[in-house]
Amino acid sequence: MKQAWLIEALVLVIAAPHALGGGQSPGAKAEIRAVLDDQVEAWNRGDITGFMEGYWKSEKTEFVGSSGVLRGWQAVLGRYRKTYPDRRAMGALTFSELEITELSPAAALVLGRWRLEREHDHPGGVFTLVLRKFPEGWRIILDHTSVMSGQ
Amino acid sequence: MKQAWLIEALVLVIAAPHALGGGQSPGAKAEIRAVLDDQVEAWNRGDITGFMEGYWKSEKTEFVGSSGVLRGWQAVLGRYRKTYPDRRAMGALTFSELEITELSPAAALVLGRWRLEREHDHPGGVFTLVLRKFPEGWRIILDHTSVMSGQ
Repeated sequence: MKQAWLIEALVLVIAAPHALGGGQSPGAKAEIRAVLDDQVEAWNRGDITGFMEGYWKSEKTEFVGSSGVLRGWQAVLGRYRKTYPDRRAMGALTFSELEITELSPAAALVLGRWRLEREHDHPGGVFTLVLRKFPEGWRIILDHTSVMSGQ
Repeated sequence: MKQAWLIEALVLVIAAPHALGGGQSPGAKAEIRAVLDDQVEAWNRGDITGFMEGYWKSEKTEFVGSSGVLRGWQAVLGRYRKTYPDRRAMGALTFSELEITELSPAAALVLGRWRLEREHDHPGGVFTLVLRKFPEGWRIILDHTSVMSGQ
């Protein structure tokens, strides 16, 4: 019994710098940036399902847009498919001014700007994302996207 | 030396349920709800500075609204004062459908709806807040607020 306690304590001592310090691995920001880069790449090859890989595949995933709150990965995919039915509607996506704030070793906040270059217009705006780190990697659990005029 | 190690290990064992589990004190949600309740109360007595107590008093505090991104507690206060110059403009505020998600022992996400009852209209919409726990309590570090039609 005593030995088991000591092993548990040792595990905690080893785990402590990650668990207690609020510090993430030096790669956390790079990992998150890679998830967003992958999203942009998928979008720009017309692959909405690939773009959706950045979102947590859960019924709890939330998307807040101009028409309200959507719940669930599937519902968010459905909205993207409906709003952007083809490559012309999808245009060319860029993210800019990304600001990544680490909230804990397994949670982060991203503020950024988005813009679509399309034939006849270029909608854009601001988004805030909350990501959590899952066994499969960092995933967006909430996306609040606003359209801004004059972007 | 060995004894010091054991004491440290013991501290970690005691601290572990809070530090490792991602679980917050049972009061975290209640504490956050109280911060938001205090904001609503302050607003409804015409006290915008009191309302602003819910925000982190920092140059890093961010507000994302229909006109873009504002940075800094003072800038956010300035926007509220300009947009809501008097009690008539402020109306009566309510928050509803508050959904609090604990991201870590010291970080949380809130999704909710806001509505102003005013003499001639009732604007409303959705907000997402990210809060962190500071020595002074839970404070909003980012507010992304959208106006929705038909609220």
